[in-house]
Amino acid sequence: MRFFSDNAAPAHPKVLEAIAAANRLDTAYDGDALSQRLDGAFSDLFGTEVRAFWVTTGTAANCLALAALCPPYRAILCHRDAHIEVDEAGAPGFFTGGAKLVLLDGEGAKVTAETIAEACDGIRNDVHQVQPAAISITNATEYGLVYRAAEVAAIGDLAKQRGLALHMDGARLANALVSSGDSLADLTWRAGVDALSFGFVKNGGLNAEALILFRTELADEIAVRRKRAGHLLSKGRYLAAQLLAMLDGDLWLDNARSANAAAQSLARTAPRRLVYPVEANEIFLKVTAEEAENLRGQGFDFYDWGPGQIRLVTSWDQQGEALDRLASAIAAL
Amino acid sequence: MRFFSDNAAPAHPKVLEAIAAANRLDTAYDGDALSQRLDGAFSDLFGTEVRAFWVTTGTAANCLALAALCPPYRAILCHRDAHIEVDEAGAPGFFTGGAKLVLLDGEGAKVTAETIAEACDGIRNDVHQVQPAAISITNATEYGLVYRAAEVAAIGDLAKQRGLALHMDGARLANALVSSGDSLADLTWRAGVDALSFGFVKNGGLNAEALILFRTELADEIAVRRKRAGHLLSKGRYLAAQLLAMLDGDLWLDNARSANAAAQSLARTAPRRLVYPVEANEIFLKVTAEEAENLRGQGFDFYDWGPGQIRLVTSWDQQGEALDRLASAIAAL
Amino acid sequence: MRFFSDNAAPAHPKVLEAIAAANRLDTAYDGDALSQRLDGAFSDLFGTEVRAFWVTTGTAANCLALAALCPPYRAILCHRDAHIEVDEAGAPGFFTGGAKLVLLDGEGAKVTAETIAEACDGIRNDVHQVQPAAISITNATEYGLVYRAAEVAAIGDLAKQRGLALHMDGARLANALVSSGDSLADLTWRAGVDALSFGFVKNGGLNAEALILFRTELADEIAVRRKRAGHLLSKGRYLAAQLLAMLDGDLWLDNARSANAAAQSLARTAPRRLVYPVEANEIFLKVTAEEAENLRGQGFDFYDWGPGQIRLVTSWDQQGEALDRLASAIAAL
Amino acid sequence: MRFFSDNAAPAHPKVLEAIAAANRLDTAYDGDALSQRLDGAFSDLFGTEVRAFWVTTGTAANCLALAALCPPYRAILCHRDAHIEVDEAGAPGFFTGGAKLVLLDGEGAKVTAETIAEACDGIRNDVHQVQPAAISITNATEYGLVYRAAEVAAIGDLAKQRGLALHMDGARLANALVSSGDSLADLTWRAGVDALSFGFVKNGGLNAEALILFRTELADEIAVRRKRAGHLLSKGRYLAAQLLAMLDGDLWLDNARSANAAAQSLARTAPRRLVYPVEANEIFLKVTAEEAENLRGQGFDFYDWGPGQIRLVTSWDQQGEALDRLASAIAAL
Repeated sequence: MRFFSDNAAPAHPKVLEAIAAANRLDTAYDGDALSQRLDGAFSDLFGTEVRAFWVTTGTAANCLALAALCPPYRAILCHRDAHIEVDEAGAPGFFTGGAKLVLLDGEGAKVTAETIAEACDGIRNDVHQVQPAAISITNATEYGLVYRAAEVAAIGDLAKQRGLALHMDGARLANALVSSGDSLADLTWRAGVDALSFGFVKNGGLNAEALILFRTELADEIAVRRKRAGHLLSKGRYLAAQLLAMLDGDLWLDNARSANAAAQSLARTAPRRLVYPVEANEIFLKVTAEEAENLRGQGFDFYDWGPGQIRLVTSWDQQGEALDRLASAIAAL
Repeated sequence: MRFFSDNAAPAHPKVLEAIAAANRLDTAYDGDALSQRLDGAFSDLFGTEVRAFWVTTGTAANCLALAALCPPYRAILCHRDAHIEVDEAGAPGFFTGGAKLVLLDGEGAKVTAETIAEACDGIRNDVHQVQPAAISITNATEYGLVYRAAEVAAIGDLAKQRGLALHMDGARLANALVSSGDSLADLTWRAGVDALSFGFVKNGGLNAEALILFRTELADEIAVRRKRAGHLLSKGRYLAAQLLAMLDGDLWLDNARSANAAAQSLARTAPRRLVYPVEANEIFLKVTAEEAENLRGQGFDFYDWGPGQIRLVTSWDQQGEALDRLASAIAAL
Repeated sequence: MRFFSDNAAPAHPKVLEAIAAANRLDTAYDGDALSQRLDGAFSDLFGTEVRAFWVTTGTAANCLALAALCPPYRAILCHRDAHIEVDEAGAPGFFTGGAKLVLLDGEGAKVTAETIAEACDGIRNDVHQVQPAAISITNATEYGLVYRAAEVAAIGDLAKQRGLALHMDGARLANALVSSGDSLADLTWRAGVDALSFGFVKNGGLNAEALILFRTELADEIAVRRKRAGHLLSKGRYLAAQLLAMLDGDLWLDNARSANAAAQSLARTAPRRLVYPVEANEIFLKVTAEEAENLRGQGFDFYDWGPGQIRLVTSWDQQGEALDRLASAIAAL
Repeated sequence: MRFFSDNAAPAHPKVLEAIAAANRLDTAYDGDALSQRLDGAFSDLFGTEVRAFWVTTGTAANCLALAALCPPYRAILCHRDAHIEVDEAGAPGFFTGGAKLVLLDGEGAKVTAETIAEACDGIRNDVHQVQPAAISITNATEYGLVYRAAEVAAIGDLAKQRGLALHMDGARLANALVSSGDSLADLTWRAGVDALSFGFVKNGGLNAEALILFRTELADEIAVRRKRAGHLLSKGRYLAAQLLAMLDGDLWLDNARSANAAAQSLARTAPRRLVYPVEANEIFLKVTAEEAENLRGQGFDFYDWGPGQIRLVTSWDQQGEALDRLASAIAAL
C-alpha cells in the first residue's frame, strides 16, 4: 500500500480508453484532430482565450514556460522549496540558458507579495546583479498548502507593478482548486498568471500534462522551444486524448476531490501530528522513527521528510479498505 | 490514405495491450519493474552489456546522446540532410550548449569514412576553429538508404583513429536491419557505435523510443541529462511496457519487414521513377506536378520533396487494398 | 618582416599616449569620464544617435551583438567563410545559447540580397526547421573585398522585408570605408545595419574595439550581456581612451589609408597573381609552393591560404623599405 | 579622495612602462614572446608546474575555471556573498551552461569544510537533485577576511574526499598572502586548489588578470573556452607584459603590502567600529547615516554597505596625506 506519491498511481480507465480510441492514423505531431481541439477546450474551461500545449512532464511545462518568460541573463523568484529549485535537476538553468533562481522563504513553501517585494528591493539595479524577470509559485505548494485566489492576485498585482511575469506550477492545481472553492479563472489568469503548468499526470493521467499560455502571443515561441527540447512527440494525439478525457465530464475535478477526501480522512485521525494544515492531498506528519518503522511494518510505504517527519500523498484511486487501515494504523500509533 | 510518414501510423495493438497491462501502481520514474527490465532485455538483444533509457522522441534520444559525446565547444560531423541538422529545430545546439554541426555531402544522405576524414583534415588544429568530437550517422538514412555493417565499421574505425565518438540515429534502424541482412550487433556496437537512438515509434510504437549506450560509463550522465531536459516521465512504466512489447516475439522485426515489403511493392511498380534505390520503407519518386496532383486527386497523401519529387513512406500496417490501389495508381501515371 | 595579419601590428603611439594620460583614479567599469564620452563621440561620428560599448575583441563585439539580435532557437545567415563561422571557436553558439549559423556562398566571402533571399526561401516555415532572425556580413570581407553602400542597402532592405536584423562585422570597416568612398552613415545605419562591430585593434589600436548599436533600445541588454560574459573591465577608461584617441583627428582614417596604400603598392607588382581584387588591406596571391618558400627565405612571413595561395595583410605602420623589398621580391618571382 | 574600490585605482607606472616596451610587432594572440613566458614565470613563482592564461577580468578567470571544473548539470558550492553569486551578473550560469550555485553561510563570507560537508550531505544523491562538482572560495573574502593555509587545506581535503574540484577566486590573493604569512604554495596548490583566479588589476595592474591551472591537463579546454568566450585578445603581449611586470621584483607583493598597511592605519583609528577584523585591504565600519554624510562632506567617497555600515577599500597607491586625513576624520567622528 503505497502512499509515496500521486505520481506513481495508475491512470484512470477513461484515460486508457481515450488512448485506445485515438489509435488510428492521423497527422503527425500536433496536427491531428485531437491536438487541434486543445486550444478550444482549454479556452472554454478557463473562460478566456488560451493556447494549450501538451507535454509529457511537469518539468517540461515549467521550464518551457520559464524560458519564454525569463531571458538567460535575468532571474526567476521562487520559494526555496519549489520543485523547480529542488527536484528538477537544474532544468530551469538548462531551458533558460543559465537564468538564476532567487530563493525566497515562507512557511509551507508559500511566498507572499511581501516576501517577493523584499527580495526585489534587495537587488541593486545595476549590471552586476541579476535582475528579476519572473515569479514562479506552486499551487498547491510542495507542502500541500493552497494559495487562494486573493493571495495569487496580490502576487499578480505586485508582478505587474514590478514588470515581472508570473508563472504557476500547477502540478496539483486540481487539488488546490477544489480545496479553495475559488473559480479556475480567479485562481489563474484573473489573478495575473501569465503561464500555467497544468498537471494531469498526478491526477489520473498517464503521461500528458498541459502548458497553458494566457499570454497567447508567446505561443509561437513555445511551439519552437517544445520542438527544440525534444518534446514534440510525433504521435501527439495520444497525449491530446488524455487531456480531453480528463476534461470530459469534469473527470479531473472528480479525481482531485477523491484524492483530497482521502487526505482529509487521514488528517482527521491525527490532527496533532500535522506539520501543516492538510489543504490538498499531501499529509506531513510528525512521527518518531519507531512509529514510522511500525507503519512500514504494517505494509505502508511513504517517504521520510526530514527528521521526525513523514510525507503521505493520496491519489485519485485511494479509497476504501487500504485507506481505512492506514487511518487506523496512524490513530493507533 | 496517407503515405506522409510512418510517424503518423497507429500503434500496434500489442503495444496498447502492454500499456493497459502496466496500469497499476508502481514506483515512479524509472524505478518500476518494467523500466528495470530494460537494461537486461536490450543487453540480451544486442549480445553485449548496454544501458537502455526510454525517451519519448527521437530528437531527445539523439540530442541526449550527442550532449554526452560532444562538449559545447566542439563539433559533430553529420550529413547536411541529417535529421539533427534539418528537422530538429536546432535541438543539438540546445542540448549540447552550442556545439556545432559540420555538414558533409554524400548521395542519399549517406556519408563515408572518406568524406569524414576529408572534413576533419580541413579543420585547422588550433583554438580558432571548432574541433570535431563526434560523428552522427542515420541508418536507414533520411532518403531510405541503408548502411551495411561494413560501411558502419569503416566509419567506426575512422572514428577510433581520430578520437571521435560515433552516434547512430536509428529512427528506422529496424527497417535498415531487416534490409541489410546484417546482425544487430554487427550493425552497431561491433562496428564502433557508442550510442544509438533506437527508434520504435515509427515502427508501431506509441510514444516510446530507446536510447542505447554501448559505452555504459555514460549512463549516469545520461540519466541526469534526461531528467534535466524534462524527459524523465513520472509514470515511466508505460514507456518501458511499449519497448518490451516491441521486443517480445520480435514484433519490431515483423513490423519492419512489413513496412519494407510494402515499400518494395510500390517500388516495383515504377523502377524508372525512383530517385534512390528503395532499401527500407521510404520511396522517393520523380513525378511531375500534374502527376502528383493526379495521385492526390485519388485520395493519396504524401509530401512533395523538392521540385519534381515526392516522398512516400510505408508503415508497419500498410498492406492490402490501399497499398495495391496506390501501386496501381503509380503504375498508371 | 611579418605580413601575417594586421592584428599583430603594434599600437599607434597616440594610443599609448592616451592610455598613459588616462592613468589616474576614476570610477570603475564604464562609469569613468572617458567611457561616458563614447556615446557622444560615436553619435557625432555616425551622424545619428548610437550607443557605443568598448570591448576587447572582435569576437566579443560580434557575438554580443548577435546574441541580442537572435534568440537561441533561431538562425543567423552569414557567408561560409565568415569569421564568426570559421575563426571564432563557435563563439556565436556560446553567446546566443545555441543559435544556428546558416552558411551562404558568394565569391570573395561576399553575400548578396539574392543569396540571402534564396536561403530564406529554402527554409520551411514550421517548428522543425530553424527560422532565420539575423544576417551578418563582414565589411571588408575575409578576402578583402568591400561592400559598397548600395550593396549593404540592398541587404538592409531585404532584411527589413523579411523581418531580419542586420549585423556588420567591421573588423576592417575603416579599410572598407576609405576604399569605398562612401560615407560612414551610408555604409552602416542608413543602409539598415542594426549593430556594428567596429574594429580598431587591427587598425592601430591596442586592445579596444567598439560595439555600436544603431538600435539604441538594445543598449541595456548589451550592457548586461557584456558584464555576464566577463567583458566589463573594471578599469574601462584605458579602453575608452584608446577609442577616443583613434577618433581624434581621424587617426583611424589615416591608419586605414596607410594600410590600404601599402596593399595597393603590393598589388600593383603582381596583378596577374591576384586571387581577388585588392580593395582593402588584404592581398591573396597565387604562388607555387616553391615561390612561397622563396619569399619566406628572404625573411617574409605570411599565411598559406589553401593550395597555391598565400595571404598578405598590410598594417597601418607598414611603409618604407620592408614594403618595397616585399614588392620587389614578389615582382621578381 | 576615493575609497570606493581598489579596482578604480590607477595602474602602477611599471605596468605602463611594460606595455610601452611591448609595443612592437609580434605574433598575434598568445603566440608572442611575452605570453610564451607566462607558464614558466608562474611555475617558478608557485614552485610547481602550472599553466597560466591572461584574461582581462576576474569574472572571466572565475567563470572559465568553473566551466572547466563543473559540467552544466552539476553545482558549485560557494558562500552566498561570493562575488560569483552576487556581482557577476550570472556569469557562472552563462559560462557553465546552466550549472547551479549552492549558497553557503559563514561569517565574513568565509566558508569552512564543515559547512561545505553539511551542504553536500543535504543533497539527495539522485537524478532529481543537482549534485555538486566544485567548491569556490574567495581569498581574501568579499569582507576582507583571509583564509590561512590550514583552512584552505581543510577545504581541499574535504574536496578530495567528496570528489569535488576546488577553485579559488584570488581577486585579492596578494593582500591575503602578505597578511597570512603563509607561502603562496601552501595557500594554493599544496592546499588542494585546482584552479586559481589570480588578481592583478586591483593590485596595480591595468587590465590583465591571470588564470592559473594547477591541474595542467585542463589547459587545452581552457584555451578553447577562452577563445570561444571572446577572451583571446589578438595583441596578447600587452597583457602578458603587465603580468610579468607585476611579478618582476615582487612588485605585486609590494603593492599588496602597501594597500594592507593603509587599511591597518585606518583600522587602528576606530577599532570599535569594525564590523570584521581588517585582515587585508577592506575596512567595514559601523557608522550612522549622519557620520557617513559627515565623511562625504569632507570629500571622502565610499560605498554604503547595508544599513549603518560603510565599506572602505585601500589601494596600492594610497599613502600619505589623503590617508592621514581620512584616519583623522574617522577618529574624529
